[in-house]
Amino acid sequence: MNHLDRDRLVSLRRAFHRHPEPAWREFRTTARVVDELERIDVDELLVGPDVLDADARMGLPDDADLAVWRDRARDTGVDPDLLDRLAGGNTGAIAALDGERDGPTVALRVDIDGLPRAESADPDHHPAAEGFRSETGAMHACGHDAHATIGLGVLETLADRDFAGRLKVLFQPAEEVVGGAAPMAESGHLDDVDYLLALHIGLDHPTGEVVAGVGGFLAVSHFHAEFEGEPAHAGGHPAEGCNAVQAMATAVQNLYAIPRHEDGATRVNAGDVGGGTAANIVPEQAYIEGEVRGESTDLMEYMRERADRVLDSAAVMHDCEVEIGTSGQAPSAENDPELVDVVEAIAGRTEGVDSVLRHDDLGGSEDATYLMRHVQDRGGKAAFVCVGTDHPGGHHTATFDVDEDSLPIGVAVLSETITHLGREAP
Amino acid sequence: MNHLDRDRLVSLRRAFHRHPEPAWREFRTTARVVDELERIDVDELLVGPDVLDADARMGLPDDADLAVWRDRARDTGVDPDLLDRLAGGNTGAIAALDGERDGPTVALRVDIDGLPRAESADPDHHPAAEGFRSETGAMHACGHDAHATIGLGVLETLADRDFAGRLKVLFQPAEEVVGGAAPMAESGHLDDVDYLLALHIGLDHPTGEVVAGVGGFLAVSHFHAEFEGEPAHAGGHPAEGCNAVQAMATAVQNLYAIPRHEDGATRVNAGDVGGGTAANIVPEQAYIEGEVRGESTDLMEYMRERADRVLDSAAVMHDCEVEIGTSGQAPSAENDPELVDVVEAIAGRTEGVDSVLRHDDLGGSEDATYLMRHVQDRGGKAAFVCVGTDHPGGHHTATFDVDEDSLPIGVAVLSETITHLGREAP
Amino acid sequence: MNHLDRDRLVSLRRAFHRHPEPAWREFRTTARVVDELERIDVDELLVGPDVLDADARMGLPDDADLAVWRDRARDTGVDPDLLDRLAGGNTGAIAALDGERDGPTVALRVDIDGLPRAESADPDHHPAAEGFRSETGAMHACGHDAHATIGLGVLETLADRDFAGRLKVLFQPAEEVVGGAAPMAESGHLDDVDYLLALHIGLDHPTGEVVAGVGGFLAVSHFHAEFEGEPAHAGGHPAEGCNAVQAMATAVQNLYAIPRHEDGATRVNAGDVGGGTAANIVPEQAYIEGEVRGESTDLMEYMRERADRVLDSAAVMHDCEVEIGTSGQAPSAENDPELVDVVEAIAGRTEGVDSVLRHDDLGGSEDATYLMRHVQDRGGKAAFVCVGTDHPGGHHTATFDVDEDSLPIGVAVLSETITHLGREAP
Amino acid sequence: MNHLDRDRLVSLRRAFHRHPEPAWREFRTTARVVDELERIDVDELLVGPDVLDADARMGLPDDADLAVWRDRARDTGVDPDLLDRLAGGNTGAIAALDGERDGPTVALRVDIDGLPRAESADPDHHPAAEGFRSETGAMHACGHDAHATIGLGVLETLADRDFAGRLKVLFQPAEEVVGGAAPMAESGHLDDVDYLLALHIGLDHPTGEVVAGVGGFLAVSHFHAEFEGEPAHAGGHPAEGCNAVQAMATAVQNLYAIPRHEDGATRVNAGDVGGGTAANIVPEQAYIEGEVRGESTDLMEYMRERADRVLDSAAVMHDCEVEIGTSGQAPSAENDPELVDVVEAIAGRTEGVDSVLRHDDLGGSEDATYLMRHVQDRGGKAAFVCVGTDHPGGHHTATFDVDEDSLPIGVAVLSETITHLGREAP
Repeated sequence: MNHLDRDRLVSLRRAFHRHPEPAWREFRTTARVVDELERIDVDELLVGPDVLDADARMGLPDDADLAVWRDRARDTGVDPDLLDRLAGGNTGAIAALDGERDGPTVALRVDIDGLPRAESADPDHHPAAEGFRSETGAMHACGHDAHATIGLGVLETLADRDFAGRLKVLFQPAEEVVGGAAPMAESGHLDDVDYLLALHIGLDHPTGEVVAGVGGFLAVSHFHAEFEGEPAHAGGHPAEGCNAVQAMATAVQNLYAIPRHEDGATRVNAGDVGGGTAANIVPEQAYIEGEVRGESTDLMEYMRERADRVLDSAAVMHDCEVEIGTSGQAPSAENDPELVDVVEAIAGRTEGVDSVLRHDDLGGSEDATYLMRHVQDRGGKAAFVCVGTDHPGGHHTATFDVDEDSLPIGVAVLSETITHLGREAP
Repeated sequence: MNHLDRDRLVSLRRAFHRHPEPAWREFRTTARVVDELERIDVDELLVGPDVLDADARMGLPDDADLAVWRDRARDTGVDPDLLDRLAGGNTGAIAALDGERDGPTVALRVDIDGLPRAESADPDHHPAAEGFRSETGAMHACGHDAHATIGLGVLETLADRDFAGRLKVLFQPAEEVVGGAAPMAESGHLDDVDYLLALHIGLDHPTGEVVAGVGGFLAVSHFHAEFEGEPAHAGGHPAEGCNAVQAMATAVQNLYAIPRHEDGATRVNAGDVGGGTAANIVPEQAYIEGEVRGESTDLMEYMRERADRVLDSAAVMHDCEVEIGTSGQAPSAENDPELVDVVEAIAGRTEGVDSVLRHDDLGGSEDATYLMRHVQDRGGKAAFVCVGTDHPGGHHTATFDVDEDSLPIGVAVLSETITHLGREAP
Repeated sequence: MNHLDRDRLVSLRRAFHRHPEPAWREFRTTARVVDELERIDVDELLVGPDVLDADARMGLPDDADLAVWRDRARDTGVDPDLLDRLAGGNTGAIAALDGERDGPTVALRVDIDGLPRAESADPDHHPAAEGFRSETGAMHACGHDAHATIGLGVLETLADRDFAGRLKVLFQPAEEVVGGAAPMAESGHLDDVDYLLALHIGLDHPTGEVVAGVGGFLAVSHFHAEFEGEPAHAGGHPAEGCNAVQAMATAVQNLYAIPRHEDGATRVNAGDVGGGTAANIVPEQAYIEGEVRGESTDLMEYMRERADRVLDSAAVMHDCEVEIGTSGQAPSAENDPELVDVVEAIAGRTEGVDSVLRHDDLGGSEDATYLMRHVQDRGGKAAFVCVGTDHPGGHHTATFDVDEDSLPIGVAVLSETITHLGREAP
Repeated sequence: MNHLDRDRLVSLRRAFHRHPEPAWREFRTTARVVDELERIDVDELLVGPDVLDADARMGLPDDADLAVWRDRARDTGVDPDLLDRLAGGNTGAIAALDGERDGPTVALRVDIDGLPRAESADPDHHPAAEGFRSETGAMHACGHDAHATIGLGVLETLADRDFAGRLKVLFQPAEEVVGGAAPMAESGHLDDVDYLLALHIGLDHPTGEVVAGVGGFLAVSHFHAEFEGEPAHAGGHPAEGCNAVQAMATAVQNLYAIPRHEDGATRVNAGDVGGGTAANIVPEQAYIEGEVRGESTDLMEYMRERADRVLDSAAVMHDCEVEIGTSGQAPSAENDPELVDVVEAIAGRTEGVDSVLRHDDLGGSEDATYLMRHVQDRGGKAAFVCVGTDHPGGHHTATFDVDEDSLPIGVAVLSETITHLGREAP
């Protein structure tokens, strides 16, 4: 990768950074990816409905919300035909390159969505200083702009087809709501994959460091509980109401009190709650946006089952109804040591890499685990690779940024790994 | 009152109905009241800062919110000088008429604020059908449009000064947040009042019915509690957070569980609560908008003291801070039988009145009690009069409306009562 | 009533005081009542199973507990044949006297049970000083020793049959658990009663004061909830347990938080709770002994329905079973003014009475209300009469005692009232 | 060890089994240990106050309870002088043997207390069938009878002094309340110890299996919280009470809801709770016997700090006082691999041992960790050895029993290890 390449990567990444779109609203982002893929002239290019099992999508926003972002994309000149194909939140793309020799099918997964939060306007914040700060109100505060860029960079690097086998790059939507991997896994495009590489940048690792196999994923389930009671005047008719806020508060207290589990770590959080309308009305409605996690998928399911029981009985206790939905879910997963071996070895000899860790724990959740398990269940191997980058603010904060020197490193480690996997094929 | 008068009253009421403004935002409403008072040519006309002890105001919105409503008033042509005097939520007015003979000082209190709720657009809803449905997003869903109208009607009726003594009409803001009466009571304008009449329309009494003395007021205190904790990633660092939602939920559970009191009825409600930002973040902030009530002021204070104790210790329990503010408060109060006698007698011989009740229980709260107690504490007498009106929807609902036939009845009962009180003076 | 009579009453009362027996265990007490009735030679004498609908008994102790008290009675020389008839907690008696003239049937109800609490041994405590302190571990801390005594005194006074009609005296067991009146009401013995007088001594009224009609009864329901979960080692297998203490604590929190009711006073109390066995075992079992009350029977039933809902759903929430039983229940009731008139008039001319109140509020519960309602439902009249007595300690405390001067006053007021009711008969 | 030895061990173990004494009440048990030690003629023999820092004892019962067990011991013929020295719950003993050659100081810790639970009387339960079932109401349901026996067996085996160094055997009281190790650690007798071996039998390992280093100890803290409020009549004066049961229930709910910790496993249990006296009294008093645990001592302390905060603020919330005491505590600890190596090697060549595990997790708590850390902090090494035994019922259940074939195995593995450690000394 020469200097010119670095400039192209930086320019691409800044373009993505400037136009972040949250989960299932990646209309403009998908369009830009498609433009680049057409330029690269890949062998197969699929978008939206063709890369997702639409029914398996989770955390989908409502139509009005989707319309806002689609219209915004249209206004910036995105091709209306493409927008029609992405309609209803069918975002994302898959591109394939066929190597000139026979070999294994390797998939690289990069995610492309931004976060619904404001970006810092501080002049010390590099995107603000350099003029590529977000223009959409959302923010690429987790580096998915870099992920999309590296995905395109790998395709461009291997566009000479000088490798054995087939490369599929998955531009996955809606990772931040843990909702986009499941529908991509169910699409069938991973069924023939021999090796899956998933990528993340940063994670508190500095530029020049690579983690060959990030593990310690917590399985996660996001839920939304909506309590419905009966309103009443709190002064005149307190006993006529069915108090949804009491139901919600009882549930919150008991959610956090779900017993710890002897088999490993669990988590629970009622992260966003609300209810009622005015001080003098017995609250008719309340909600909890929450999540449970587990060190294993079983532990997450234990927590989820207990959480549902708490939510249901808290509603009954206060004579309310409750509807519980799942707005995102991901299992736990393990890296395959053989594939980690390869990444570790390749990274060790890649220019710009001065530290290689075999393993590190994420301590959080990632829906790439859906894809990893899908591949592993069919005999393939998977690894979750972290490419370090100096980031001034933490992930998901207003001052997150990536060190653009890490972009060519990411492209190099992944391209070389993919090439190597073909070479090793029996 | 002739037919022409009824038309004027109806037209005035519809003008108010069309432009409801919530508590402390009654810029346009006050301006319209002032216009009418100038037309009537009252003997004294005071507005905003001159009728309120500004520091005693409760439930004041923030500056940005006030600015929205002030700008809206300006855009509809309200005199900028008047707006300047009302700036910062100093709304409301007091008008005085001096009768041609010596006599007692009688005050009539009418409230003028609307409610922050949408009005029905159903064609069966009379204001919708007749084209005077709210244009502001707020709604006169409690009849304060009729109250302001009747206040003006009484002044117009007595504008010939053919009565003994002095009449003050108080156009009070911010009754709906139980926040406007205290500052008006503290303004000094009630210190010399011999008789206070407070008015309410409807309250489930039909057109043609008058209640001479509505009682059974519950003393009330509205509070706002704001919990502040520490955020943390719910998966990666659950123990680093200080969970404001747990504090809030613990408080809600224990607020409702404050012991009943042997001395009489009490109430408590956590009517509007919320907290947190996202499923995967330990919530850093939460709030409760709530209220307590008591059959007596002592009982209300018992509840409030216990509520504060619950809120404080719930915060400590979860290592959070809490700030508790009072956003509205009103004592209980009793009617003076001598004044109720007068209203009862007058109403009994007023045209259009076919049923007079001496007493009925409100079972709710009203900050007119502040004014009643203020007058009574200084040797005056007070009564809370209800003028019945057929109302299709209940108070505070989207289909509330008043039967405009009740407007002249209200004007007649009150004007006659005021005239009679001068006649009876020793 | 001469001086001799007073001495007999005092001696009887002290005998009862020395041998208090709690609810359904009044074996020795019933035996002593029977002895006295045989001596008086009443016209009808029924005990135990003949005066109760056994299935309607509430708050019955278990067999082992009953056996302890029955054996104790046997050891003090109670006739074994009588004990056999009282077996299984069928205590209490009814005695009837037929006046020599025709007239109404009048019932007098006195209760006979003690309380399960220790009596003061302080030398300032009169029973301790005079040597008639409790010898059973239980205590007559509510004056039922005086009630039984006055019941016998009235029978003795009227034993000359110089009155019109029929007198039935009900020696009722198990008032303290609100469990004895219902089975006596269901026994049929009250079906033909024209007037019912129920008696209580003290209630903070001094010697010489009589209340002709005590009202303000709160309807009450006592419940027992038994939670059953699954134990587990709290360190090794926390998730394997079903935690009955968590269920109980959730229930307690939500019982107290049952909404207040607009129609009147309600009460709730979880007065005796427990659960678990050791710090390191997830608790398998827990219980709540609680009660709800209401100003009316409807309000009590509202509370009870809500309480059952809370208990049931708290159990479900923590995957436990719960069994809920009713261990005592009584409705609210009203006095009949005509009968209160008579008592008021008689008391006003009784020697030793220097103050007569027509009415006072109990503010508590009494199962005499079952009997009052039963008589009233069949066209009879009822009054609950309080005979004042100076009592140093409050009811139910260790230093409660009665002023024995009030015993002949009680006998006189009630005998005279009964005689008078016959005289008034049409 | 010949056949005769096995019989002696069995006979000793059955004697202990028949007379189990709970924590700090091991009067007769200590006396029997002393008898045996005198027979063996050890070089140093210390009891009670000389082996404990009395102020560091935790979980001590009250004087009345101690008196019951001391009197019982006296009645079975225990030497009154010895009982005087053990007075006040100063139980336990330390015996030392000096080998004939110089060498390291090795300590062996065995615990001697029983559990406060009934033993099965089922004829299938071996101690019931063979006539050595508990006669005290308590039960050796965790094998401490075997521990004391093996401790004595090791001393007897090495009584020929044919080893290098010094052996101390610690007969520790009060392990079951996690209260006896700290005072023994603080006594000074461990300060010069080079190697500490702690012993446990069973733990689900069969006869013939030995675990050289049991780890995975959870640090634990037992607490007792006593809430004090104000009683009141629940019907007549509900607002006058300060409800200790509400405080307790609020605490229970929030104890279980203490946030999980990212650094490792935590536990919390409110294992034994209660409060109140009667359904109709606002509860004046309540208590929680509970515990917290952590995978590390830091995690236990995190939980304990949070628990104290919950308990304190729950009391404040309901206007109660709370006193919180620590009734037992133990840190986490690790085995020293060098010492585990030795035990593993020795066990591998011991007759009767057919399976040796290097490591297994306890998943619970043990106060031997106090002793292990005390030795390690001073440069010594420690290991917690498990000698397997077939046990029909689980630990702490009514049918727990040990396979007496494991007694000589335990004696052999430990004697050989101690001998070997002397041989290896530099």
